[in-house]
Amino acid sequence: MSDPSSSSSSSNAAESIAKAAREAFEQSQLVDVSERDLALKAIREVLEGKKDEVLKANKEDMEAAETLLSQGKLSKSLVSRLDLSKPGKFEAMLQGITDVASLPVPTGQVTFAKELGPGLDLHRVTCPVGVLLVIFEARPEVVVNIAALAIKSGNAAILKGGKESLKTSTILSSLIAEALNKTSIPSTFIQSVSTRSEISSLLAQDRYIDLVMPRGGNELVKNIQNNTRIPVMGHADGICAVYVDESAVEEKALRVVVESKIDYMAACNSAETLLIHESLLNTLWPKLASELISNNVCLRCDQSTLSSIKDLPETSKYVTASTEDDYYTEFLGPTLAVKVVSSVNEAIKHINLHSSHHTDSIITENENSMLNWCKGLDSANCFINSSTRFADGQRYGLGTEVGISTGKTHARGPVGLDGLVIYKYMLRSKNDKGSTISDYEKGGNKYTHRDLVKSDPPF
Amino acid sequence: MSDPSSSSSSSNAAESIAKAAREAFEQSQLVDVSERDLALKAIREVLEGKKDEVLKANKEDMEAAETLLSQGKLSKSLVSRLDLSKPGKFEAMLQGITDVASLPVPTGQVTFAKELGPGLDLHRVTCPVGVLLVIFEARPEVVVNIAALAIKSGNAAILKGGKESLKTSTILSSLIAEALNKTSIPSTFIQSVSTRSEISSLLAQDRYIDLVMPRGGNELVKNIQNNTRIPVMGHADGICAVYVDESAVEEKALRVVVESKIDYMAACNSAETLLIHESLLNTLWPKLASELISNNVCLRCDQSTLSSIKDLPETSKYVTASTEDDYYTEFLGPTLAVKVVSSVNEAIKHINLHSSHHTDSIITENENSMLNWCKGLDSANCFINSSTRFADGQRYGLGTEVGISTGKTHARGPVGLDGLVIYKYMLRSKNDKGSTISDYEKGGNKYTHRDLVKSDPPF
Repeated sequence: MSDPSSSSSSSNAAESIAKAAREAFEQSQLVDVSERDLALKAIREVLEGKKDEVLKANKEDMEAAETLLSQGKLSKSLVSRLDLSKPGKFEAMLQGITDVASLPVPTGQVTFAKELGPGLDLHRVTCPVGVLLVIFEARPEVVVNIAALAIKSGNAAILKGGKESLKTSTILSSLIAEALNKTSIPSTFIQSVSTRSEISSLLAQDRYIDLVMPRGGNELVKNIQNNTRIPVMGHADGICAVYVDESAVEEKALRVVVESKIDYMAACNSAETLLIHESLLNTLWPKLASELISNNVCLRCDQSTLSSIKDLPETSKYVTASTEDDYYTEFLGPTLAVKVVSSVNEAIKHINLHSSHHTDSIITENENSMLNWCKGLDSANCFINSSTRFADGQRYGLGTEVGISTGKTHARGPVGLDGLVIYKYMLRSKNDKGSTISDYEKGGNKYTHRDLVKSDPPF
Repeated sequence: MSDPSSSSSSSNAAESIAKAAREAFEQSQLVDVSERDLALKAIREVLEGKKDEVLKANKEDMEAAETLLSQGKLSKSLVSRLDLSKPGKFEAMLQGITDVASLPVPTGQVTFAKELGPGLDLHRVTCPVGVLLVIFEARPEVVVNIAALAIKSGNAAILKGGKESLKTSTILSSLIAEALNKTSIPSTFIQSVSTRSEISSLLAQDRYIDLVMPRGGNELVKNIQNNTRIPVMGHADGICAVYVDESAVEEKALRVVVESKIDYMAACNSAETLLIHESLLNTLWPKLASELISNNVCLRCDQSTLSSIKDLPETSKYVTASTEDDYYTEFLGPTLAVKVVSSVNEAIKHINLHSSHHTDSIITENENSMLNWCKGLDSANCFINSSTRFADGQRYGLGTEVGISTGKTHARGPVGLDGLVIYKYMLRSKNDKGSTISDYEKGGNKYTHRDLVKSDPPF
């Protein structure tokens, strides 16, 4: 937005895009849901036929990225994630479309059904949220994943991918539009934008856009929350903890703590904090510390956990005193903040205050500790004797996920198709004179509020 | 916030209140749910015993309000709503507490249950959202209603009532705290604030507050949405429409249109727009217009609907030409915007563009029109041959309502206890070695993703 005129032109462009998305959404609502799977099939076929063109665009993105990598401006892992030409990756992307098509349709489900009075039936039926704005990282295949999820759930979507994958995502988007053109779903049902200034203009379109889903860092999410009236679903941080309770079994603690920390350190569901029950300071804790150190994990310890491992080999290299800030930090690397606690309730209190309410695991054999953990912990995913890395839509069997929500409204934890729907109430009068409240509140009718069979649809 | 120092002191006060609410919420999660009903019982008993004190405070609010009324600074209907001494009103407030206590507990319900693999069970269980900030109008009994709903659903709440009812709501709040002091629910579970500057400071407490629910005008809601990162649930406008389709039965149209407009014109679920199928311009429409005029409703008509009733008596007094703005207006009084349309789809398009997505009703005998209406209309409440006035939690049999949401995330339409809960995922490993993803993704285990019986709780 360096040029003031571009700000106003991107604002006009944003309004056109958002309005077109809304019109496409509304039009699509009158189309039979079976058309959604036909659209997914058409997209798969078009992409399959244009594989060479997609890979050619991806090669250009890769070349630009490798130049930036050599200049130290991009990380190796990001460049690797850009690459669609890795064996099997393109096919996995296509298979993802078919997998989404085979999931149950999340809309049109009756979740509440009551007869209000004779001949007056109320149904609460799931429906799409409307128009989604999804902002995501570099991986270009996410364009196709999100498009598939949006179409299956009946939501129109505006997508903005990482700038490093621009050429790839541009061609993928135009092939999706080409495919939709052959179907009953409007081609503007899925649109892409490519610049940050378009995003900031789109955030003002609360009249047309219903939900923003940023998948990215803390800064991106907070910036979006501060700049829009549109509801935002996403997660800012992934500060996850493992708590080793008094009754923990050693092997469970070792396996779960080590995997939660080291399996994939950049993931949001990796552990950043370890809490140790005080009774384990001189027994299980030193073994755990050795195992972590042998996996090159740096430990930032409070006084108690520090002093009980000071005689271990290599502590001078791997162990330092922690600060309060460490317990609020998402390290995303080989560092773990460690602290002693005297009870499960103290662990819960620490986590509720410091964590990002994402995923926390307890290692315990005590039923009461488990129960308190699940009741008291204010986190989306409360785990028992299980690695925090299980917090994932695919591992949960949701089929696929749009993202993980650490918010506490609408959807929480891994968000699948269920998280992309809301509901509407349908009230139908079958009475000869129609129905008015005065029939009930001034006339002789009585509200029955009788439950109806949910499997009987309103039409 | 006229005094700069008061801004910083109210910001500190807001943080203390919000932090206390969060601590009360977290503490309450470890308390058995049966304690919630005991707390409701205690509140009822304390209020019952202190009726005289409450009515004395209410009398002071009433006297101040009547002075303002005589100066033309308050409306008569607002003053009337303040009055807790009307016969039966205090008792109805107490009965409301008992009614809420008798509703099913909305938390602890398993909504999804899967075995991820042998001995590894995932449950999605409903839980409270956390800390609510509820801002509402003058009626003082709302303090008690919302407190009851919050306690029943396990949410801590911070309440801000209208300034006109300050003395009444202050004593009600302190009696609620007094009652909670006798129970296992912390007395800071329900807190009240009394000034606007406290609200603006509370809106910055997104670390402690999970959901804001403003019940009030458009301006209040938009102002809040613009000034907080906390999710906001509420409704800005209530621009509802009735569409009279080609096949409408005259009696249904007359009864539903007239009640939707005149039953309670200040209500958000009253009709502000009437759409008429073009085939009815010279048949049903003039009858409907006469009926509306005889009820003193002013009609703002487009050219077609205007010219077909120009010869009715009294049109010069009641009928004028409409402007485009009229179709975006919540009149909240005896004015109705009227327009001709040529099909149900045109009616849907008009409403999706102009309405507030609250409640819209079609008068029709045509099944296809009904189906398109319910599919195509992007409104929380899609009605058929029924008065828009049915859109209400009590009439829906939800027991009671916290408000009506025109948002499209979390909860939509009348919001009862169900709308105050979210869920968390609980994953429990019963394996001898605990569970790691490497058991599945590198080892020999296979994800089963087998459905479990939802009625079997995780503990």
